[in-house]
Formats: sequence, C-alpha cells, structure tokens
Amino acid sequence: MNVRIEEVANAAQVSTATVSRALNNLPGVGQQTREHVLKVALELGYSPSHSASALASGTSHSIGIVLPDVSRWFLATAVQSIEMALHERHYDALIYTLPDDEGKPRPTFNPTVLRSKVDAVAVLSVYFSEQEVELLKSLNLPVAFLSVRQPGFSHVGIDDEAAMRSACENLIAHGHRIIGHLSGMTNDTCPNAPTERRRRAWKAMLGRHGLECSDSLDSPARVMTAQHGYEAAKILLNRRPDVTAIVASSDEMAMGAIQCLRERSLTPGVDVAVIGIDGNNLSEAFGLTTVAQPVYEQSMALVTILLAALAGDTAHRELIFPTHLIARNSTARQHVDIAHALQGG
Amino acid sequence: MNVRIEEVANAAQVSTATVSRALNNLPGVGQQTREHVLKVALELGYSPSHSASALASGTSHSIGIVLPDVSRWFLATAVQSIEMALHERHYDALIYTLPDDEGKPRPTFNPTVLRSKVDAVAVLSVYFSEQEVELLKSLNLPVAFLSVRQPGFSHVGIDDEAAMRSACENLIAHGHRIIGHLSGMTNDTCPNAPTERRRRAWKAMLGRHGLECSDSLDSPARVMTAQHGYEAAKILLNRRPDVTAIVASSDEMAMGAIQCLRERSLTPGVDVAVIGIDGNNLSEAFGLTTVAQPVYEQSMALVTILLAALAGDTAHRELIFPTHLIARNSTARQHVDIAHALQGG
Repeated sequence: MNVRIEEVANAAQVSTATVSRALNNLPGVGQQTREHVLKVALELGYSPSHSASALASGTSHSIGIVLPDVSRWFLATAVQSIEMALHERHYDALIYTLPDDEGKPRPTFNPTVLRSKVDAVAVLSVYFSEQEVELLKSLNLPVAFLSVRQPGFSHVGIDDEAAMRSACENLIAHGHRIIGHLSGMTNDTCPNAPTERRRRAWKAMLGRHGLECSDSLDSPARVMTAQHGYEAAKILLNRRPDVTAIVASSDEMAMGAIQCLRERSLTPGVDVAVIGIDGNNLSEAFGLTTVAQPVYEQSMALVTILLAALAGDTAHRELIFPTHLIARNSTARQHVDIAHALQGG
Repeated sequence: MNVRIEEVANAAQVSTATVSRALNNLPGVGQQTREHVLKVALELGYSPSHSASALASGTSHSIGIVLPDVSRWFLATAVQSIEMALHERHYDALIYTLPDDEGKPRPTFNPTVLRSKVDAVAVLSVYFSEQEVELLKSLNLPVAFLSVRQPGFSHVGIDDEAAMRSACENLIAHGHRIIGHLSGMTNDTCPNAPTERRRRAWKAMLGRHGLECSDSLDSPARVMTAQHGYEAAKILLNRRPDVTAIVASSDEMAMGAIQCLRERSLTPGVDVAVIGIDGNNLSEAFGLTTVAQPVYEQSMALVTILLAALAGDTAHRELIFPTHLIARNSTARQHVDIAHALQGG
C-alpha cells in the first residue's frame, strides 16, 4: 500500500509538483485539477507522508481547537460542525481540552505546545490570562474565538444581552414579577464573559420593568451543566420560594432546574416557568422554552475566518449572530400575580 | 519565544539527547528526569518543532479518534475522556468524524489519510467495510475499537445482552406484558452491532417469559438520537397503542419517547414505563430509568490498550465492562394488567 507520489502523478497525468500542490491545498492548481488529483490519490490509496510534507510546505494542515469540555452540548455541537467543515477543506482537527469541571481551576494552557502542529487555532468558550494571551500571540498563527470575546482577536458569537432580554420579555409578558436567574459561572471569571453579560442584561431588564432584581434572585452555577443548574435552582428555591419564573444562562442548567421543580412536585410552566438559552437538541424533548442560538452557523463563520487568515486575509473580524425564542410548555401558562393585581399594578 | 533545545538542556543540566527523549516519551529516561525536563521546557516556553521531531523519531505523538458524531452523549463523553488521558501522557488527539445523521450512508473512510499523522487509532461506534478494514490494517498501526466489535482488533465495550436483560427484567418485575422496543440502527448494519445485540436480547428475554415479541413491537430509529427516538416511538405507539412499557437502545432515544408520551398526555412511569441504556448525564433531570454504562472507564481502557501496543505489547484484548440499573420515575409505577390478571396469568 506504499503508493508513491509519482504513481499518482502518472495516473492523474499531471506533474508530481501538481499532485503535491493539489493535495496540500496550495495555490496554482485549478479546482477541477485539484478534485481530479484527489480522486486519483484516494483511489490509489495514496497519502503523502504528513510530517515530510509539513516540513516541506511549512504547514501542518491541522487546526487546533481549544475548549474546556467536549461533552457539553454547545461545545460538542461546535466541535462537530468545525471538524466537518475542516475535513471538507482537507484540514485536520486537533482538540485540546482544559477541563473546568472538577472543583478546581482549569489547568494553565501553554499555547506553545501547538507550535508547528497546527496552522491556526480556534478557541471555544475559554478565557485566557494575559500570560496565555502573550504566548498565544507569540505563535504568530491565526486565532479566532467562539462565544468569548478576547480583545485583539477575531470573534464569533451571539448578542448575549439581546438573548437574555428576549427571555425576560417572554416571562414578563406572561405576567411574572419575581424572576430568578441561574447564572453561568466558569472558572474563567471575566467581566466580558457571555454568562456575565447575560446576568447584567437580566438585572437591567428587570430594573427597567420596575421588578425586583436583588442578588437573592441570582443563583450562580459553578459550571453550566444540568447537574450544577440543579444545585443552583435548589439554592434559589430555598432562598426565594416566591419565584414564579426562572431564566437560566444555558438549556442544560434549565433542565437541572426542571428536575429540581419536579422533585418538589412543582410543574414547570404551571407552578414555575423555566426558560433557557441555547436551543439544545434535547430542549424539545424537555418541553423547554429556549432562546436558540445558531451553533452550526457560528462554527462555519469561525472556520471561514481562520481559513481566510491562512489565505492572507488577516483582518480582525467580529461576527454576531441573532437568536430566536422557541416557546414550549415550560412557559406555557399565563401567570396571574394576585397580590400585584389587587394593588392594581 | 524561539527557545532552542540547547537552552532547555543547559537549564535542565542534561544533554540535548535527553531533552529530546524526555519530550518525545522515548525510553532511556527516568521518570524524575522526564518530569524535570518537561517542567524546565514548559517554563522556558520551549516546544520542539513537531514535524521535525516526528520525522526524526518516526512518531507523531498523536492518536486518531474516528467516530460518527461528536455531539451524541456517549461519543462526546468518550472523546472527552480519551483526550484527557492522552494529554496527560503527552499525546495529541486528532478527530475524524464520519457523519451518519443526514439521511444518507456515511462517507467511506480512507484510513490511509491517517498515515504518518497518528501513531495509533481509536475507533468509536463505527463499523468498517472489508475494504476499509484492509486499508486500516495496511497502516500497520495499533487500532482498538470502542463499543463495536471488529474481528481481528482489540475491543472495549459493555455486555449488551446483559444490559438489555436487566432493562427487560425491571419492566417484567413491574408487571408489564406488552413491552415495545426502540432499536438503534446505524447506517453501518452489522449482525454484531451493539444495537443489534440489544434487539436480539430484548426478543429472547420476552420469549423466555412467554411474552409477545413480534416485529410490530420493534420500532427502529435511524440514528440513536432523541429526535429519531421520538419518531420511532410515534410509529410504535400508533401501531401498538396497547404497549405499557418501552425499552430504548439509548437514553437519548428514551428521552424522545418521553417527549412523544407527553404530547399524547401520557405520563411516563404512570401510563407507559420508559427505560433507556447509557446513564446519560441528563437522564437524572429527565427522571429516566436507565441501565448505566461506565464510559470513562471504557475510554481509559481503550487508551491503555493503544499505549501498551505502542510500547510493544500488541496482544489483542477484549475488555467488557459491567452495567448497572438506576431506577427513576419513568418506571416507578407497578403495572397491573387487568385482562391478564382476570385470566389468572
């Protein structure tokens, strides 16, 4: 099975230089020729010696994906989308996780481990320290961030404030006046974090409507998972049994809140309304109202930015995608606040 | 930031050969020295030129992970566990997905694309054709399979028959006599597939108890996701409105079944019992009874097999992990079959 590049060139009736250019996605080869060479190479079972070609071309044809955890929905969906887009373009996906779900700060990342292994870096939902950022910049590779906004880098994300506003508007329109919040809180605390932006938007929105927005209505979850959302909801409901609605910073946290309600024989959407942010593919099965974000589209944009940078277009870009509310049973019932109605409010 | 190997050697007070051996996990360096060199290299921000060191050592220090989809729970959890274990051992994880969720057969895999990019291959929940297997073998790399059993390769998995038996036993002990099944069906049809083993075990178990096990009680889902489980449950309930219990080949499919029940105003565990297989981290929030499998432990075993093979121990291994039932509300209520009771059955 050790097919040589000369055999591919002969079978495809092109030069070995063209084979090399075609298989390494280098310029100077037409699209038709590139596809023809790829097809022939695949048929013959040819694969260039990767390390040799990487040394020769100075590129690895790999993109590094740095993220806290593959198993959370948003991240798993993003990795899947990015990987598919990369493979279509003949790039490999190397993943590097920085786990933050073990009751201790995430490990420090040394970006220089990526040197000469990847051509570009996608960072998903991780904030870097100044030192990490400096090392990242020293790689001199294209870098783009998904979900988080790191100054000085390209960024793809959603309008976190608008997402939270639309969640709160839905609850307020349904008559809710005491609206609790399950904050997402990663170990990377940052005033600019999406979770923090959502928390501030929740507070501002309630304030604007003359509703209570005290800290006792805000319950932070250590990690944005169902389990931690469940714990945060328990604390919130113990502290404020008067809440009639809960907005969670992620769908997984909202699912944990629903579990907590059911344990107390409270029916989501009847006794307490619950709404999440994400559009998790399980939110439908949960009957969960959610503010959905387009993960596939964000992932494609991230890949496009990185590949454009590799092709020489290194302008910093910021792409913000719209979200949309999907109403389901967890916010179905109109809430009538008797006390408030009696006061004529 | 371009630290040279000589600077690391000087700072660590060892030879450059020792630095190279230590950083490439080659034999001939004690554990203490290895850690010392790693620490110094990290402090200096040194990272070896990957392609050059790969060429020199003949290894890439990367493991390829081939799988259908990162976003399904079992696969996302396995990838996360494998990646963490690899990084601890200074290996990179390259992922290759072969999507099977688009209404068409999964793409053919050409394993030779992995040549000289990875030192070993982990295959998760994918069956290969004979041609793909031949190409895979031609790589002459260690290969191990998770969840599927491909003859001639090492394999890690669970006892699928025992898992299904324990699910059925639970339902039968609760008095259920008409037990529907949501089969998992991937595009890789194979008599040896875990989903097919579970289907056969369901049939055998019902037969052994003198219960109906006709094909009309078996509803296949195209892919083992919540959405496809929901569709399969719809077909099952339309065809057999007399089912009092549903066993699904995965928790995600079971969640889809619960959604289907709720849409018909049927309460899971009261009107129709539902049980899944997996131990999905959202099963608790769903109140779903499940037969849990240890994904982390299976992933560690897979990594151990591959790294042992790289160290020279290439014996074929088969490791089967036990499962255990976690009872929740979705199978809470004892089912009394009136007709059956009247017949004195």
